Amino acid sequence: MTDFKPTKKSKVIRSGNRGKYDKKSVYKALDAAFMCHISYLYDDTSIIIPTAYARSGDKILVHGAKKNRMLNSILGQKQACIAVTHLDGLVLARSAFHHSMNYRSVVLFGLPVEVEEEAAKEQALYLISENILKGRWNEVRKPTSDELKATLVVSIEIREAALKERQGAPIDNEEDYALPIWAGELPIETSYQKAIPDPALSHQLEMPVSVLSAVL
Amino acid sequence: MTDFKPTKKSKVIRSGNRGKYDKKSVYKALDAAFMCHISYLYDDTSIIIPTAYARSGDKILVHGAKKNRMLNSILGQKQACIAVTHLDGLVLARSAFHHSMNYRSVVLFGLPVEVEEEAAKEQALYLISENILKGRWNEVRKPTSDELKATLVVSIEIREAALKERQGAPIDNEEDYALPIWAGELPIETSYQKAIPDPALSHQLEMPVSVLSAVL
Repeated sequence: MTDFKPTKKSKVIRSGNRGKYDKKSVYKALDAAFMCHISYLYDDTSIIIPTAYARSGDKILVHGAKKNRMLNSILGQKQACIAVTHLDGLVLARSAFHHSMNYRSVVLFGLPVEVEEEAAKEQALYLISENILKGRWNEVRKPTSDELKATLVVSIEIREAALKERQGAPIDNEEDYALPIWAGELPIETSYQKAIPDPALSHQLEMPVSVLSAVL
Repeated sequence: MTDFKPTKKSKVIRSGNRGKYDKKSVYKALDAAFMCHISYLYDDTSIIIPTAYARSGDKILVHGAKKNRMLNSILGQKQACIAVTHLDGLVLARSAFHHSMNYRSVVLFGLPVEVEEEAAKEQALYLISENILKGRWNEVRKPTSDELKATLVVSIEIREAALKERQGAPIDNEEDYALPIWAGELPIETSYQKAIPDPALSHQLEMPVSVLSAVL
């Protein structure tokens, strides 16, 4: 496993002391999420769109409808930028100035390539589905050949990536520690709530294992 | 209040039937978050960076260190793209193909302008702070003149904006409703966890109202 090198560009995007370039750290942060933001160029500007993904080896897999503009646009680009952000908490300092966030933020650049072969497309969709809700794929009706044809799958081969991270207590100016002001962290957590069965369910069905495991 | 017009560009980014352009809907989604992703052009590519924000009227306020590359880059651009995304839940259909997300996704374009005057900068920082954790600003040491000088504040005047939203139950193919497969929604919620006092607290201090109100 070769780690990413802090190139001119990735140093630029992850300046300061909080940049990490080892694959283990970067991929751990990528694997803990399933939503990313991708930018693409349109006319003279860039547009940011959120989308679901999975990582497979050194690739990020995304999908959408065959005519999806973002996907078709990045396929015409030599590289795409993807951001994956975990907001872990608020950092509440004694001074307004030193307030901050605890976070893990991956920014990566990769080469977008269309996944064309049917079995490879289905495998990519399986991986994205598993990354979102483990076990769900095997509970549902699989895609037909026509549905696969209507789906565009893009694999983004990661060329550069960096993780920027902050964790822990606030850091105030030396003289501010004496102030009688409460300081600390306010952790943020994202969780699944009670599932809502589709009112159109035509059978008496138990909630499936995928859902029960996620809500635990 | 003049609503945003679905221009060629904003129709492009919010295709399909899920686009909303009325200010009330767009601003409601903006005001329910405090983290956005901003893209900027660097060499021949765009880079996405997460940052905190507040909305004030028709402006998005962001800040960073004086040398912050993203902020300085967007100040050299005629427009910046900002994405604010709420992931509200997983939509679990009977078919893999019709799985989806419930979400509110705002994409906007605006003109970045530096906020230079000291009182206006402090007001912008106050608004960002209030948007993140209401009441905190009045509990802490305010920024000094030097700290304000070290801070770059950028106001992005919103020119175009659109909300794309999906809520509710899955929508399957007619023939799939008869399948004995559980379907429904799995809501996602983000919440504050128990606050962690800074181990360096030098006083016996009660948790402040801002924190107590957020953790409720």
